[in-house]
Order: sequence, then C-alpha cells, then structure tokens
Amino acid sequence: MGQTARAKKQILALNAFPADGGAALADDVAALVARRRKSFGATSVLFYEAPLHIVGAKGADIFTADGRTYLDLYNNVPSVGHCHPKVVEAVARQMGRYNTHTRYLFDEVHDYAERLLAHFPAPLTNVAFTCTGSESNDLALRLIRGATGGMGIVVTDTAYHGNTTAVTEVSPSSYKTGAPPAHVRTVPPPHPRHYGADVGKGFAAAITAAAKAMADEGIPFAGLLVDTIFSSDGVYADPPGFLSAAFDAVRALGGLVIADEVQPGFARTGTHMWGFARHGVVPDVVTMGKPMGNGFPMGGVVTRPELLTRFANEFGYFNTFGGNPVASAAGLAVLDAIAEDGLMENARAVGAHIVGRLDAARGRCAALGEVRGAGLYLGVEIVAREDGAPDPAAASALINRLRDKGILIGAAGPLGHVLKVRPPLCLTLEQADRFADAMEDILSA
Amino acid sequence: MGQTARAKKQILALNAFPADGGAALADDVAALVARRRKSFGATSVLFYEAPLHIVGAKGADIFTADGRTYLDLYNNVPSVGHCHPKVVEAVARQMGRYNTHTRYLFDEVHDYAERLLAHFPAPLTNVAFTCTGSESNDLALRLIRGATGGMGIVVTDTAYHGNTTAVTEVSPSSYKTGAPPAHVRTVPPPHPRHYGADVGKGFAAAITAAAKAMADEGIPFAGLLVDTIFSSDGVYADPPGFLSAAFDAVRALGGLVIADEVQPGFARTGTHMWGFARHGVVPDVVTMGKPMGNGFPMGGVVTRPELLTRFANEFGYFNTFGGNPVASAAGLAVLDAIAEDGLMENARAVGAHIVGRLDAARGRCAALGEVRGAGLYLGVEIVAREDGAPDPAAASALINRLRDKGILIGAAGPLGHVLKVRPPLCLTLEQADRFADAMEDILSA
Repeated sequence: MGQTARAKKQILALNAFPADGGAALADDVAALVARRRKSFGATSVLFYEAPLHIVGAKGADIFTADGRTYLDLYNNVPSVGHCHPKVVEAVARQMGRYNTHTRYLFDEVHDYAERLLAHFPAPLTNVAFTCTGSESNDLALRLIRGATGGMGIVVTDTAYHGNTTAVTEVSPSSYKTGAPPAHVRTVPPPHPRHYGADVGKGFAAAITAAAKAMADEGIPFAGLLVDTIFSSDGVYADPPGFLSAAFDAVRALGGLVIADEVQPGFARTGTHMWGFARHGVVPDVVTMGKPMGNGFPMGGVVTRPELLTRFANEFGYFNTFGGNPVASAAGLAVLDAIAEDGLMENARAVGAHIVGRLDAARGRCAALGEVRGAGLYLGVEIVAREDGAPDPAAASALINRLRDKGILIGAAGPLGHVLKVRPPLCLTLEQADRFADAMEDILSA
Repeated sequence: MGQTARAKKQILALNAFPADGGAALADDVAALVARRRKSFGATSVLFYEAPLHIVGAKGADIFTADGRTYLDLYNNVPSVGHCHPKVVEAVARQMGRYNTHTRYLFDEVHDYAERLLAHFPAPLTNVAFTCTGSESNDLALRLIRGATGGMGIVVTDTAYHGNTTAVTEVSPSSYKTGAPPAHVRTVPPPHPRHYGADVGKGFAAAITAAAKAMADEGIPFAGLLVDTIFSSDGVYADPPGFLSAAFDAVRALGGLVIADEVQPGFARTGTHMWGFARHGVVPDVVTMGKPMGNGFPMGGVVTRPELLTRFANEFGYFNTFGGNPVASAAGLAVLDAIAEDGLMENARAVGAHIVGRLDAARGRCAALGEVRGAGLYLGVEIVAREDGAPDPAAASALINRLRDKGILIGAAGPLGHVLKVRPPLCLTLEQADRFADAMEDILSA
C-alpha cells in the first residue's frame, strides 16, 4: 500500500507544470499560464516545466508558437493523425447539414453503428453511443451491476477508467488521498514480477481472491473492468491470451467483464481492432472513447442485447450528443482512415521497429529497462544504471530532454518510470527512427 | 408516490415510437427503424408514431426525406439555430488547425474561458470544461459533496439532470422501477398548487424539511440541485426571485446550491444569460451543457475557486475532450451568435408574443390550461375541457396533430400534459404565429 500511495503521487505529478513556475517562460507562454490559472484554478494541469503553446498540428507533428515542430508520441486521441483531412472534411460537411439528437432517424448514424458493430464478435451486437470514455465506463458499470445484482468491481492497482463519480471509484490512480471504496478491489497488473511465469493463471487467481474477499464482506461481485493494454499500469500486452484465464475466473464467480478499449482500441495494437481480440476473449461489455472520433468528443458501449434490455427496463437512458450525425460522420471517417491508410499494419510494423531499435540499444543504454507492448502502444521502463531499479526521476528527466529534442512523450505505471509510446498511428519509420536515435543519444551519454 | 410512479411512466413513454410499430411507415423510415432496432436494441427510443427521417436543418426548420419542412419548437441544443453558419465555420476551421487536450496551451481555450466567465457574477470565477451536461452535474455533485462532507441532495419530483450513475440518482424521472436512494429526496416543483400563494417560502420550507428528514436518518445534507427553469417538472419560472428563499434555506443548513443551466442557460429565458440570474441569486456551482456548443458536444462547471481547490486536493480530474480547441471555437461562435443576432431579446419578444397569443386564444380553446415560462422556454398545460384536469392523452394527441401540421414539439411535467416550447432562439414572430395558429386550429375544433 505504501508503494501504491507513492505511485499515485508520482502519476499525478508526472510531467505537470509546477504551480510555482520553475522554468523561465517565453512571454506568450507566461501570459497564457497566468490567464489559465485565473480561469481554470486548481484543475489547471499543464504538461512540461515550460508548457507548449500550440498553433497547429498535422499527422504526427505538433507546431508551437515559437516556430518549433514536435514529433508527437503522446497523443492517442488524434489516432489517425492530427487534423486528418477525411475527419476534418466529414465533420465540416455534416455540421453544415444537420446535427440533432438521435430520437429522429438519420442515415449516417445507422451507417456508422453497423460499420462499427461489424468489427465485433458475436454476441456483441448492440451499441449505445456516449460522448466520452468516462460516460462509456459509467454506463458499462450500470449494465453489469444491474445484471449481476452485485456492486463489487475488480480493477488493477493503477487503473484509470475515467472521471465520473462511479468511474473515479474504479480508478485508483485518481485518488490523491484515501482509496477507492470497499466495493472496489485492486490486483497487481499482469507481469511475471507479480505472478511468476504463468501470468494468466496468477492474474486470474488474484482476481478470484479479490472477488471472494469482497463477497466475504457482504459485497456481491459484479465483475472485472480491465483496460486490455493496461496502459496506466505501465503497458502489459504479452503473452497474447493471458486474459483468457481471468475472463474464465470472473465468469466462474458469476461476474461479467468490461473491456475498456479507450486506450488499445481502433487498431492501435497492430494486429487487431481491439485489445481484447489479441487475447482471443469476448467481453460482456466493451467501452470506447478517445480515438473513436479522432478528437471529436464521442464514445460508445458495445454489448449483448440482453444486458441493454435489462437495463432499459429499469432506467430511461438517453445521451443527447451521443451518436449525433456529426459524431457519426467523424466515426465513419476514422474507420475509413484506419482501413484506407493501412494504419493497423503501420502500427504493427512501426511499433515492431521501435521495439527492435530499443532492444538493440540496450547494451549501450543501461537505463533502458524492459520494452513491452503491442503495435503503437509501448511501455519502455527507465531504470537505475546501478541496480536496474525503477527510476522515475530519470524517466521525468528523459521526458524533458526528449522535449528539448522536439519529441513529446509521457509516462505511466505506478511509479511513473515507464515511458508510454502511443503516437498517432500514421507514425512513419523515419519518425520512429528519430525517436530511437534521440533515446540512444540521451541514454548513452 | 402513486402519482410520481405514474408520472415516470408517462414521461418515459411520451412521444416514443411504440415497439410494435403502430403507424404505417414509409419505406425509408421502416428500413431505418429496422436497422436501428438491430444496432441500438433496447435503448432505441424514437419520437413520434411515424419517426422523422431527417436530411437537413437550418434556423428553426428541419427538412425530412419526404420533402417536408418542419418548424422545430423542440430542440434547444441547436440553440442559436440549426447549422448556424458561425458555428459551422468555427468548427470546420479549428478542426483543420489542431484539436488536442488542454494540457497544452491554446489561445482559443483561454479566450473562451474568459468570455464565458465574464457572464458570471463574483465569486464564480473558475471553469472546468466537460463534454456533456451529465458530466457537468456529476462533477458538481462531487464538488458539493466533498465540500460539505454530506451525501444528501434535494431535487424536484420530476427532475432530470443527466445519465451517469451518480446523476441518475438525482434524476427521479429516469426511474422506470424503484426510486432514488435514501440520500436523494424530492420536493414538489414551485407552483401555488403545491405551496399556496408564497411559492418561494413554501418551496424553501419543503427543501428544509427534506434535508432535515435525511439528516434525521443519518445522511448529512450536501445541498440542492435545481434546474432553474424546472423544465422536466413542467416549466416554472415565476415570480422571478422565488428561488431566493430556497437558496437561503439550503445555506442555513450548511448546504450548497448547484444551478443546472443545461435547459435555461445561454439567454433562453429572454432577459438573462442564466436562469438563476432571473431570481437574483448566486449559486455555488453552475452547470452547463446542451446549448453551449449548438450541438458540438461540450459542457462546463463554473464555481468558486475554493470548491475546485478542495476537490483537486483529493482527486486528479482531467477531461480529455473537455474545452478542447474545437469545443472552444464552437463555444465562442455561440456567444458571438447570441450577441450579434440579438437572440436574448428575440427570445424575450417572441416568447412574450406566444404567451400573448395563447392567452388570447384560451376562450376559444377550453383545453388550453396555464401558459407559463420565460423567454423561449414555455410550458403550456393541456387540460380536460370538462374539469380542467391535466390531460396527458390530449397533450399526446396534440403533439401528433401538430406534427401533421409541420410543427415539432414535446411535453414535460409529471403527467406529461405540459407542452414544452423551446425552439432555437432565432424563432421569428411569423414562425411563432404559425405555431399559435396551429394550436388554435386544433384546440378550437
């Protein structure tokens, strides 16, 4: 628990602009920071000691007011590329035609629903559109709690699933003080250092134990909520299939599984549209958000019809903006871009290239720890040269050095020592090499 | 309670397309309905016996696939007018420039935050951007519960504040079975029929009693969450100032007040930017949604800095899409349109014209009950000719007759007998007359 408490502080502080303004700031940046503090108050969190003042973006590039161009390895929201022309055109066109809620009929909405659902295995045949990943996970929790009659949810130690009241409870990484309530239990992420060689078996056993512990305290089990790439825990993708035992364990206890695809979804992992599909499992509920509209605010919940029916018998549910015609146009353009630009294969190839480059550099870069992940969702551990221990301070310094070299990246994991590589999926081999070169330059110095 | 239970069923069923398909449908409509049922399942709720297949919209007009034009008195999301050119242009332009989350600096975001905050009285000087009214109310609940240490919330009998787990609890109108939990208590809406002549005093006393009843059961009071036009309760606007006693009562008990401006906000009530301002009160937290971006998914929470600080000390909060540059561009365009198109004054004048026309028609239309509201948020009671009792069946029939005459409108209130007039704010006097003429035609027959 001591480590978890420290972990939260690390994550929350990571890469944030300190309130006392450590760095010397350009005039335009200083002015914006001052305005921001006045309007946004305490919830104003900025990246970097000297925050970026953005004036443009394209593909995997971000342009700032000081004339610099940054290679973006952080932003997975503009997943098919910043300002992808297909998405820009689709949103602009539909904004000018009509944009009303979905209690009327529109062609685009149903075209999109069908195109999206075609990417899901049976029996996941219904979709409910929302506006954010948070709303998606909030609805998903209602679905599985209603169906099981249980409140108890198991998540990973450093999980983040969103920002509503209910979803914050299942997001231990959001707690600066205190901890989630008794109906939420955490388990370590799936890695041999926690579970030994058979990660799947160990992870499943931990989930079973957590669920039983809740049940023993009179809290019936609802199920498992899991980001299928474990992004905020530090990125855990291998071996494909390890999630299968966990799904079986949940179901053996009468629970249901929500796969949170906000991070891995929409082809990012390079071989499958969804993170869960890499593991050969079928969740009961799948939630989507960030990359779904390439920045247009939209999310969704895909599930079995009976779960939705059960819920709809108890509650009225309508999402005013959810699946509106402009969101649908954006969503269709994203699906088109993934297919037409070959982004899944690009994610696989470029991600593998980065892993290869970093693995090859390890001999010259003692601070380079484990490199893991899938496609263009990678975790790169930064460790102490002496003993290989996690080194969050070095990771933070590295992030700022990379920024000086024109590369934007973030970190994850309970201690914040895992670089999180999740660029727009259009990242080129040349751009990937630029990142690998910069890593080598800095870490071999 | 019997009435409340019936009320919920009425509201939820109101105007919905029945699952067994009562009406004969055009081929395109039938095909879309079939596709919709397959994709959306149980959460697919459509308006009208024969749903509308929309292919365009402009100003207060909606165009359908069968070549008809409908006058839209229902949709308050496209508040400055369907497809307002300023909003369309702003979104299209910004989509093509950049659209990233707000942990970087952007000019537009801070221009918008300041322009928006300029419409609020001290000490409401901080804003947190969200994507929906639901997210706004969810965050607002967290703010006041954290600050007071209480869970207890008072809302009105037929309140609707959104769709997250926490916000559904404070939305009695969303319950098809059961009722909100013990930490949510309801009071009748502010009308003489519930409280006698001094509505403000009676409403305040009811809130005090509800809060004390919770406290007696060991549930400390957090505060009042109130839609300042009481839209889903049936629209209650007068006399201006009646909310003052309620705010005082809440504060006397150590509670805080959330003003939900999703419905009345952004100039709709004709004389003020916000519903609370009509009452001369200052809430602790103000929440916004629907009309904020004219259909672009965005919401916001405006509050006192200390409430946000207290919250941010306990929880990390970030909203990925909230206040992004495109949302900010849309929000700025909406504020411009309200000012440049004179929409507040238009709402006042056209709303008053409708009230005048309906009041004048009452002698010839026995089913016309009380007409109330402010600006372009009006409630029109439909009553039985014989005894003036609420007549939801007549309201439902009227809504469908109006639709036949090319006018779209909805209903509200616990029984669903209150027509809800909330068109885009650009509604013209000529369009208002068309509505009044149609009402007279139908109701005097």
